[in-house]
Amino acid sequence: MKLITFKNKEGQARAGWLQDGGVIDMNLASHGKLPADMLGFIDKHEEYVALIQQTGLLNAKPTYTLEEVTLLAPLPNPRSFRDFISFEQHLKNASAKFGHQIAQEWYEMPIFYFTNHQQIFGPEESIPRPPKETRLDYELEMGCIIGKKGKDIKAEEAEDYIFGYTIFNDWTARAIQNKEMKCHLGPAKGKDFANALGPYIITRDEMDKYRTPDNRFDIRMTSKINGQLICDGNFKTIYYTFGQMIERASENGVNLYPGDIIGSGTVGFGSLIETNGEAYRFLEPGDVVEFEIEGIGILRNSVI
Amino acid sequence: MKLITFKNKEGQARAGWLQDGGVIDMNLASHGKLPADMLGFIDKHEEYVALIQQTGLLNAKPTYTLEEVTLLAPLPNPRSFRDFISFEQHLKNASAKFGHQIAQEWYEMPIFYFTNHQQIFGPEESIPRPPKETRLDYELEMGCIIGKKGKDIKAEEAEDYIFGYTIFNDWTARAIQNKEMKCHLGPAKGKDFANALGPYIITRDEMDKYRTPDNRFDIRMTSKINGQLICDGNFKTIYYTFGQMIERASENGVNLYPGDIIGSGTVGFGSLIETNGEAYRFLEPGDVVEFEIEGIGILRNSVI
Repeated sequence: MKLITFKNKEGQARAGWLQDGGVIDMNLASHGKLPADMLGFIDKHEEYVALIQQTGLLNAKPTYTLEEVTLLAPLPNPRSFRDFISFEQHLKNASAKFGHQIAQEWYEMPIFYFTNHQQIFGPEESIPRPPKETRLDYELEMGCIIGKKGKDIKAEEAEDYIFGYTIFNDWTARAIQNKEMKCHLGPAKGKDFANALGPYIITRDEMDKYRTPDNRFDIRMTSKINGQLICDGNFKTIYYTFGQMIERASENGVNLYPGDIIGSGTVGFGSLIETNGEAYRFLEPGDVVEFEIEGIGILRNSVI
Repeated sequence: MKLITFKNKEGQARAGWLQDGGVIDMNLASHGKLPADMLGFIDKHEEYVALIQQTGLLNAKPTYTLEEVTLLAPLPNPRSFRDFISFEQHLKNASAKFGHQIAQEWYEMPIFYFTNHQQIFGPEESIPRPPKETRLDYELEMGCIIGKKGKDIKAEEAEDYIFGYTIFNDWTARAIQNKEMKCHLGPAKGKDFANALGPYIITRDEMDKYRTPDNRFDIRMTSKINGQLICDGNFKTIYYTFGQMIERASENGVNLYPGDIIGSGTVGFGSLIETNGEAYRFLEPGDVVEFEIEGIGILRNSVI
């Protein structure tokens, strides 16, 4: 399923999915049996998916055309948001930029920080450049949405805890980030103003066709600025699997909850501090950034 | 008011406050007019406090004796959790430990990271030492609870956004933290397994009597291990006020919400990596850690 959250004609945020080129409002189409919000759906998704299959809702007529609604972030209110740094090439590029090598510790365990789960932007939403920022950047990532509560989850059993996937633009204020990180607590203000998600959550089952023998996905990941292709990567180059990241996040008795998000980290060359050939300038108001991940869709935002 | 969350005889978590040495269940005492949970109370606290005053509930007979209930974390489900590092002495001690000086940038702006708002422990609750951790530590901090939604809040107007204060033990797995921080994203697994809060939330008005002319509080902050006094500090030594921290957290259009928590950072000598004289060993199962902040109370936890 391609799950969405959208604004209806009355301006209300509603949960649903894409069907036959149109939009199903899951609460309306099910006569109130399904919830009106995505977090409510994720919380009991096994029960709800069974209900959808039993009631033949996958053959229902769309509630709206796609033009009649505005897509919002598919999960506008994640319960928490961990962002990992799991692509070796990105780390290699970023480390070289700052004159150091990849720390040996990175090869021993997946590394993450907590980012701001309360500042979520959706597809087509404008991203305000922080007032004093001179080096606005993006980061091309895949987001993994947790579907089930659990702690001390092993990588081998982690699939059971994954609800689905989406595209994640980890908007970054590089000047702010570089300055604050001199104080050793990692990125915070450099990353807290905008996390963009969308356009859909693709349920886990639909990504299986892209799965590689080593449990990655063979899917192209691209970024474009104002229509120009900038990054052309593939998720299969990731060093740690989402399973390994979930194991790390949940170890030492730490609970993960439905609606938590795990960011993959930036694919190699998926940010503007990494230059594969000629460097693109940093982002400015008016720029349109388009992320495409094969099998998921296109997440587009403009800078204001 | 000394606001609490407690477990009643039926095992339910309920919100209330201390009165005449007993416990008021706010929902019961108000015949359902006040909510049963602390987050619900904070969300509309101005309205609810007015109702408490109008209905004379501050003269009501306690619902329970303190012995009849179990105190839980006063806010068991904060919406987010930022932890700052705002005491210069702590940073000086910690930096010296790692052979570097305080970064100049720290003097230019308050610095924070996001920590795990989903792993909250209450008073008297046992803290599990992470299985492979050899250097379990604590950090003595004050927690500030946000009461009102806002963004781009100036330090001078930040008081309006503060709901109250509590004691915060930022339990820390030093060995894990030191290792992961080699990868430059700050602390995550070293800090995500336990954040202890309590025993009460003291509303803002009750702390005014401790306020210094420069907008700090003149209140003693102590730590004890197994009854032995280890740290003896004072909140007035803080470099940045909570107002300045709120300004920093909310700048660039970042929303703060009721129930968000701001940690002050560790008071000087408020962790075991800082030694003021002879070093105490790291914590082991069986140790009892007691934090006291004047005007707030005592937060006690044991290690298992």
